[in-house]
Amino acid sequence: MHLGGKLGENPPLMIGSVFYRGDRRVKDHERGVFDEEAEERLIESDLRTARQLNFPYALDVIITSKGAAEPYLKFVSRFNVPILVDGIDPEVRAHAYRIAGELGLSDIAIANAIYPDSTEEELNAIKTSGIKKAVLVAFDPKNALESLKPEVKLSILEEKLVPKAEEAGVVEFLVDVVVLDPASLASVAESMSFLRSKGYVVGCAPANALAFLSKRRYGDEAYTMLTAALSYLRMRGADFMIFGPAGRFRGVARGLAFLESMLAMEAQVPRSKLREHPFSVLRELQRVFQETSKGEV
Amino acid sequence: MHLGGKLGENPPLMIGSVFYRGDRRVKDHERGVFDEEAEERLIESDLRTARQLNFPYALDVIITSKGAAEPYLKFVSRFNVPILVDGIDPEVRAHAYRIAGELGLSDIAIANAIYPDSTEEELNAIKTSGIKKAVLVAFDPKNALESLKPEVKLSILEEKLVPKAEEAGVVEFLVDVVVLDPASLASVAESMSFLRSKGYVVGCAPANALAFLSKRRYGDEAYTMLTAALSYLRMRGADFMIFGPAGRFRGVARGLAFLESMLAMEAQVPRSKLREHPFSVLRELQRVFQETSKGEV
Repeated sequence: MHLGGKLGENPPLMIGSVFYRGDRRVKDHERGVFDEEAEERLIESDLRTARQLNFPYALDVIITSKGAAEPYLKFVSRFNVPILVDGIDPEVRAHAYRIAGELGLSDIAIANAIYPDSTEEELNAIKTSGIKKAVLVAFDPKNALESLKPEVKLSILEEKLVPKAEEAGVVEFLVDVVVLDPASLASVAESMSFLRSKGYVVGCAPANALAFLSKRRYGDEAYTMLTAALSYLRMRGADFMIFGPAGRFRGVARGLAFLESMLAMEAQVPRSKLREHPFSVLRELQRVFQETSKGEV
Repeated sequence: MHLGGKLGENPPLMIGSVFYRGDRRVKDHERGVFDEEAEERLIESDLRTARQLNFPYALDVIITSKGAAEPYLKFVSRFNVPILVDGIDPEVRAHAYRIAGELGLSDIAIANAIYPDSTEEELNAIKTSGIKKAVLVAFDPKNALESLKPEVKLSILEEKLVPKAEEAGVVEFLVDVVVLDPASLASVAESMSFLRSKGYVVGCAPANALAFLSKRRYGDEAYTMLTAALSYLRMRGADFMIFGPAGRFRGVARGLAFLESMLAMEAQVPRSKLREHPFSVLRELQRVFQETSKGEV
């Protein structure tokens, strides 16, 4: 993964979620039973969009019980994209990491996540699984208000998360600046800018706050609001964004590709690198602009 | 108009265009004949949205011939919003400014625009009309490449535009950092940031580059791309944006209102000021978030 660097140097990693609470494709979260075809359709839609527009893409696999780990991970491994192995409690996560290792997914797996209070069991499971990448959650629920401050996040990172990650054999960190609700995005943005300036690869999960922005509920406005929110977070430094349920990427992708084109120009990304880049959208708009400006609007 | 200040302190002025080349409501640009009802419907849609979301709103009235000035200006004066009096050449503009004055619109009129080569006739027309606000176009077509540079724009402003504006009796300036095509938005953004840091109220007309992003041509993606472009420009400092044909504001407004909520929080706008502010969208999202997080996504 090429993430981070000067803003605009590399497009952000876009991450869609599957098997979240409320995923209507899931029939049984305990045993991991779901409608494979329907889930695949959503993922394939995102993947097509990501390939077309040259966005890096990954799946966040939310595992709600030990029994679901194997069927869920087996299923997502077929798509050949990075997999964030995300579990709802320490025991489930430890189990899921081990399964990922056993399934031979350690190269594409990203442990999601290491927390300030992650257990030895979890860290050992990451280590034995051979997973080398992890999301680090820069937030301490025991000290919630304090840990909204950028400086406190930095010390949580340096004093707790990085040592734990290193203990687990992790060599690549994605720092998750925790989103709590829609209003929290402003402080998330501030923390991302700050931690990015310290050299970390940063991102967040606006999905936590904005998953209800579905087309079913809001019509077209769902996607313009989500586009604005993701544009805001990206411009404040997000290197990765867990944007919401898989299947929604198409609704925001071209807007984000336009933004990415602007950021790439600001970062003076060399032409050779723009050949496989969301910049293709700007090239298309330039072409249409030239055609239409000869005729009428 | 309360524009400028710390980014987020005041929402941006959103400006819709009417009577542009290609406006299908216009039947005769020479005499200013158009479908009043259809034009009104579009404007009313934008006005409803602007009122609902507390965005300041204005109309850019593009006048293509002397004969159209009176009917066009008379028509738009009924909506009780600021009117950018925009003409295609010096002679038409001078005439339009005089008509605006005669119609008693000098308080709501904004001369659009004063150029580096604006004629004495234009400046006199502004002066005699009593118009006190003007858009200043920080771009010299005789020196196009050079005048893309922020520093050159500043010197065009200080050496040519501001003296001309003062000669015309103008006391409030809106600096237009010229958009030439979609790709130019990145350099426009840079110039806006720069001129804003010098204390100017800045903006631009993405309409010049992106008017072809219509729902007819692009479906829903038109609005997500436009939302991303406007979000980008706003975050780089735009205090006003001529976003495109009147009637399209609803398609982008809620996204921009979300962004504006974030910027208002960053700027620590006092609560009392947020009562009538696009921030209302964030309040609504917070409420829906709380409701849905009790149930399912």
